Amino acid sequence: MALAIPAGFKMAGLHCGIKRNPNKEDLSLIVCERATVAAGVYTTNLVVAAPVVWDRERTPSAKIRAVITNSGNANACTGPKGDEDNAQLAALVGQQIDAEADDVLVMSTGIIGHHLPMEKISTGIETIAEKLGNSEEHFHAAARGILTTDNGEKSTGREVTLAGKKVSIVGMAKGAGMIGPKMATMLGVVLTDAELSAEQAQQVLTAVANETFNCISVEGHRSTNDTLLLLASGAAETGPLGDADLQEFQRHLREMCEELAKKIPADGEGATHLIVIDVLGCGSREDAFQIAKTVSDSPLVKTAITGGDPNWGRICSAAGYAGVDFDPSQMRLTINGHLLYEHGTPVKFDEKAASQAIKNSFETHVELSFGEGQEKARFWTSDLTVDYVKFNSEYRT
Amino acid sequence: MALAIPAGFKMAGLHCGIKRNPNKEDLSLIVCERATVAAGVYTTNLVVAAPVVWDRERTPSAKIRAVITNSGNANACTGPKGDEDNAQLAALVGQQIDAEADDVLVMSTGIIGHHLPMEKISTGIETIAEKLGNSEEHFHAAARGILTTDNGEKSTGREVTLAGKKVSIVGMAKGAGMIGPKMATMLGVVLTDAELSAEQAQQVLTAVANETFNCISVEGHRSTNDTLLLLASGAAETGPLGDADLQEFQRHLREMCEELAKKIPADGEGATHLIVIDVLGCGSREDAFQIAKTVSDSPLVKTAITGGDPNWGRICSAAGYAGVDFDPSQMRLTINGHLLYEHGTPVKFDEKAASQAIKNSFETHVELSFGEGQEKARFWTSDLTVDYVKFNSEYRT
Repeated sequence: MALAIPAGFKMAGLHCGIKRNPNKEDLSLIVCERATVAAGVYTTNLVVAAPVVWDRERTPSAKIRAVITNSGNANACTGPKGDEDNAQLAALVGQQIDAEADDVLVMSTGIIGHHLPMEKISTGIETIAEKLGNSEEHFHAAARGILTTDNGEKSTGREVTLAGKKVSIVGMAKGAGMIGPKMATMLGVVLTDAELSAEQAQQVLTAVANETFNCISVEGHRSTNDTLLLLASGAAETGPLGDADLQEFQRHLREMCEELAKKIPADGEGATHLIVIDVLGCGSREDAFQIAKTVSDSPLVKTAITGGDPNWGRICSAAGYAGVDFDPSQMRLTINGHLLYEHGTPVKFDEKAASQAIKNSFETHVELSFGEGQEKARFWTSDLTVDYVKFNSEYRT
Repeated sequence: MALAIPAGFKMAGLHCGIKRNPNKEDLSLIVCERATVAAGVYTTNLVVAAPVVWDRERTPSAKIRAVITNSGNANACTGPKGDEDNAQLAALVGQQIDAEADDVLVMSTGIIGHHLPMEKISTGIETIAEKLGNSEEHFHAAARGILTTDNGEKSTGREVTLAGKKVSIVGMAKGAGMIGPKMATMLGVVLTDAELSAEQAQQVLTAVANETFNCISVEGHRSTNDTLLLLASGAAETGPLGDADLQEFQRHLREMCEELAKKIPADGEGATHLIVIDVLGCGSREDAFQIAKTVSDSPLVKTAITGGDPNWGRICSAAGYAGVDFDPSQMRLTINGHLLYEHGTPVKFDEKAASQAIKNSFETHVELSFGEGQEKARFWTSDLTVDYVKFNSEYRT
């Protein structure tokens, strides 16, 4: 897919030596040609990394000049020195592009509890500043620079017409472990050349994150670092977006964020299935979300899908401890269209066909409906495999 | 260990054909010689099995005559027919021992969503009623009859002096999957010949469950069936227990329930470590419990212990999303006595020694302390292994 890179941004990615593998980018820089609108949504973890503290204080903003991201080291639980290192990163980028450190956002991802290798990163920042460009290749290098255990790049983009002007939107994200909902799921950056105010940018980003990146998990462990940024350069000369165009922009942003968000559990560590959980007929969206999240967090549900087992008892019992009040006799469950449970009693179904439907498809669709109201939520998660356990019991030692 | 079986009870266990393996008991009967005090604590899952509905309505009681347990089938999510089957089970036992069905408690454990094989169980109840006895062998057969995927029997017992009389207390429990806290963790029965009122029995059982069986998990999936019963026959002729003796009884009950409860995650499906999590220095016990539970539910924490990895970042970050407010800079973490994190910054420690300390011991002791107050909680959980995933992705298909 050919991507149109939004005007007003230059970017690059390179290997500076944080990761052992010299073929893997571990530094990513996005530079804004002029003061640019930026919004952010961050982890809700109480234990947060230095870059999250930094960015949270600086968004929304109308004067951001760059986003520097390193992968391979999270700069989390690193104390005052972690904060100093983070500030120095921003200052080093500022020196290269003639900007204030305060106008540089920072993202970090990787291992917790180790100080950043500042010498390698300093040299990397000098080098990367000379490699900036606006081509598709530059974008892909920057998108690779934010990855950790991901199997591949996660990016998307589209051209749309807003206020009569061609506008480009592109996005990048990373997974693939320590993924739990309520923000704290990943790193992501969306760039556009549409003109949004800082308030508009924050408003649409928050709304979209709540239905996309906040509705995914791999194993449900909420990270210390995760960050989703939206940068709007205004270089497409749309002028300030009116309500209708803003709504249209939000619709595109939502579709793109859903596409990026889904890629994360789809590429979850060791995952062999992407599980899509639709919860319908609830009294509130929060109730539906809570049930979807609880079902998605259950290792018994995940391993059933891994094994191609339409084990509906595990799903119904997980719904029962979500902390949401509902009438169990109104619960109805389908998996990939096979009706498995209704009216509080087992339903006769073709176990072999239901099992094959799970085994034959990478995506498993669980639909759980209740008789409490009209509200609903969709949640995406990974299955739980032997490879996940192997990978995470051998990750560090 | 020789067990003294409390007077006033007879019991037996046998294979009636619910489980495929003819060498595994799947039916367990405890008969009280006269009307007996019984208290119960049950799953908090909204989706509950027929026997839980039945027992909840009938405890606390002063006139219980029997407890019948089947393993291999949970009689959960089985609709009105499940309730009828359950009532029939109680009636069949009542016929055998000349008691009202209403005075018979029922427990079931095993697969969800299948109707009980009533013919096999009916025949089983006739046979088991002829095998009752008060010997240690009878107790062990009954204790084996409640097991499912457990690797072995979980039982304990002791003789104590209360009100100047020798009193016996014995207990049995089963694990080993679908184990989450807040009751809904297992089946357990404690028998004693001390004399307690129904109110006393309920009070001490609830208090003890909150610090033992409600503080364990394997994978955190709360079951539909779990039940803990205390039966007190009064046959030791202690007379009604006064406050001091009741307190003494509760102390013994607590120690025994802790011993039984720990056996469940220790025998968790595929477990290679029992993880003991102590959370100290919190503002309330509920805060401490919530942090301990959140840390214990994290697959990233569990797999780190599986791999002998003192990966403290995973533990500290899990504490951060427990939903409890605390000052992260006051957090302090030790694993098996090795200090790994303090004052919000990494601590220099001998990684090899810390790793070996995990690898060399079945029990891993995680101690996480905060500067918020004096309250604390202890929680026990299993690690997460390749065998857990294999077992649970192959359990049914």
